[in-house]
Amino acid sequence: MTTTPSTTIAPVTVTVLGLGEMGSALANAFVSNGHPTTVWNRTPGKADALVRAGARAVSEPGQAVAAGELVVVSVQGNDIAREILESAGEALAGRTVLNLTDGTSTAAREVAERAAAQGADYLHGQIMTIAPGIGQPESVVFYGGSETAYGRYGSALTPLAGRGAWISADPGMPALYGMAVHGTMWGLLNGFLHAAALLSDAGVGVRQFLSHAEPSMSALTSFLPFLADEVDSGEFAVPFGALKHHLPSIEDLLRESEFRGIDAELPRYTRALVTKLVEAGHGNDSYSRVVEHFRKG
Amino acid sequence: MTTTPSTTIAPVTVTVLGLGEMGSALANAFVSNGHPTTVWNRTPGKADALVRAGARAVSEPGQAVAAGELVVVSVQGNDIAREILESAGEALAGRTVLNLTDGTSTAAREVAERAAAQGADYLHGQIMTIAPGIGQPESVVFYGGSETAYGRYGSALTPLAGRGAWISADPGMPALYGMAVHGTMWGLLNGFLHAAALLSDAGVGVRQFLSHAEPSMSALTSFLPFLADEVDSGEFAVPFGALKHHLPSIEDLLRESEFRGIDAELPRYTRALVTKLVEAGHGNDSYSRVVEHFRKG
Repeated sequence: MTTTPSTTIAPVTVTVLGLGEMGSALANAFVSNGHPTTVWNRTPGKADALVRAGARAVSEPGQAVAAGELVVVSVQGNDIAREILESAGEALAGRTVLNLTDGTSTAAREVAERAAAQGADYLHGQIMTIAPGIGQPESVVFYGGSETAYGRYGSALTPLAGRGAWISADPGMPALYGMAVHGTMWGLLNGFLHAAALLSDAGVGVRQFLSHAEPSMSALTSFLPFLADEVDSGEFAVPFGALKHHLPSIEDLLRESEFRGIDAELPRYTRALVTKLVEAGHGNDSYSRVVEHFRKG
Repeated sequence: MTTTPSTTIAPVTVTVLGLGEMGSALANAFVSNGHPTTVWNRTPGKADALVRAGARAVSEPGQAVAAGELVVVSVQGNDIAREILESAGEALAGRTVLNLTDGTSTAAREVAERAAAQGADYLHGQIMTIAPGIGQPESVVFYGGSETAYGRYGSALTPLAGRGAWISADPGMPALYGMAVHGTMWGLLNGFLHAAALLSDAGVGVRQFLSHAEPSMSALTSFLPFLADEVDSGEFAVPFGALKHHLPSIEDLLRESEFRGIDAELPRYTRALVTKLVEAGHGNDSYSRVVEHFRKG
């Protein structure tokens, strides 16, 4: 080790398979925290800086897996993750795989099945930050799969992302949690950037807008627990702020967008959703009733 | 007055035109804060509780306007607001109109022109809360129009909504600010409720999800100032989290939605936006580059 461990966590032998931006950040965090770390990447050359920092680089996945009790996988898609684990063969038996590869819940479960078939315990992790966020106390990772494995390695994983949480025995669940956050984020960003187009068309700086609107904007996510309870309970009636009262304001946004020549597909989509539910007799319900539009059937 | 003034603000004679849910809440707040308040509503009977609390009810807008130096308008649309002001005729001269009616920026400017033609000063206010939020310290109102009028009446308005802010001499601007917040909100809610449909299909309580995802969810709005700066400066290049890196995760959300039979129009819309910008050569730019999709031309 060339760096001093930043914590007193018992060292774990770690293997990192995949040295893209994220895999390299993860390997670096393990090395910095004093864990003997072996790295492998399909194309060579990515390991040089890590080797200088104290990691050991090997040329075959089987060799890499044999060196670590915790086998971290960070590659471009779960098909590749499965292939690499398969190529490690019997070396995987008795290890714990921590797969941090992005994908769907089904794809994560398929990697879990592969690991199980080779005698390994399995954890899936959904990383909710970009590479520079690895090692930060506020960074979030959702873990799912073997609770025993999380009990064993959780403390070694905390320095990677301070807000790690084991959420389910189902290894597909972290991907679903990640998508739920990201889907909410894309919705927020699309709505905000549509608004930014309106504001800048009217000659208003978006930062200037935020300087006044910050209390309203940061309050937006505070509504979500109420909506969550409505969705979970199926009780949507509300005394104020019901769907029918949203409709005139949605119409105003649509009218203003059209007047200014700003693309109006997004407010038109929202209007269609809300109109459909109001016409179905849900006008006195909370906005959360929109969940039923999305549900199957 | 049947109630004790809650502050030591100098009393202002106030007229409230329109006693719907919001107008009634506003009139009640003025009465409670010790301002001599005259109220009018097109259909009678709405004033009874206010009269018991100390307001005076009259039957004609002109009569109502003659009684108050500050004329508050809260009705269903700015066409009605203009008609009512017009019907008050010469009584409006020398008064200050505070129009708190929802609508587009153009419609607000039209009411301002009407008020000016009748010799009144004009303020527009965009209320960012529901009726029960009137009188709360955290409630937001965006004011625009006469800065002199805001200087004169701002302290009388603070007890109605603690976070009032005068944002522009343009009386159309509060409506635009309001839409920008609401448009962001609908984006957030649609994204969240789509995610809620996915989660509940997978047997996960949405509140249970939030119990783990709360740090990620409340962090979402913290990105907005960075996006605002990118939009304002037109400098979109980012070292991490660029548009091209969003695309595989958007594909995963789309695939998971289709797999579970959840309506996929929303992730498909996001994919189309991002794909278009990546194909136009903006793959290494921040998500904020999406603003250009919305802009005219």
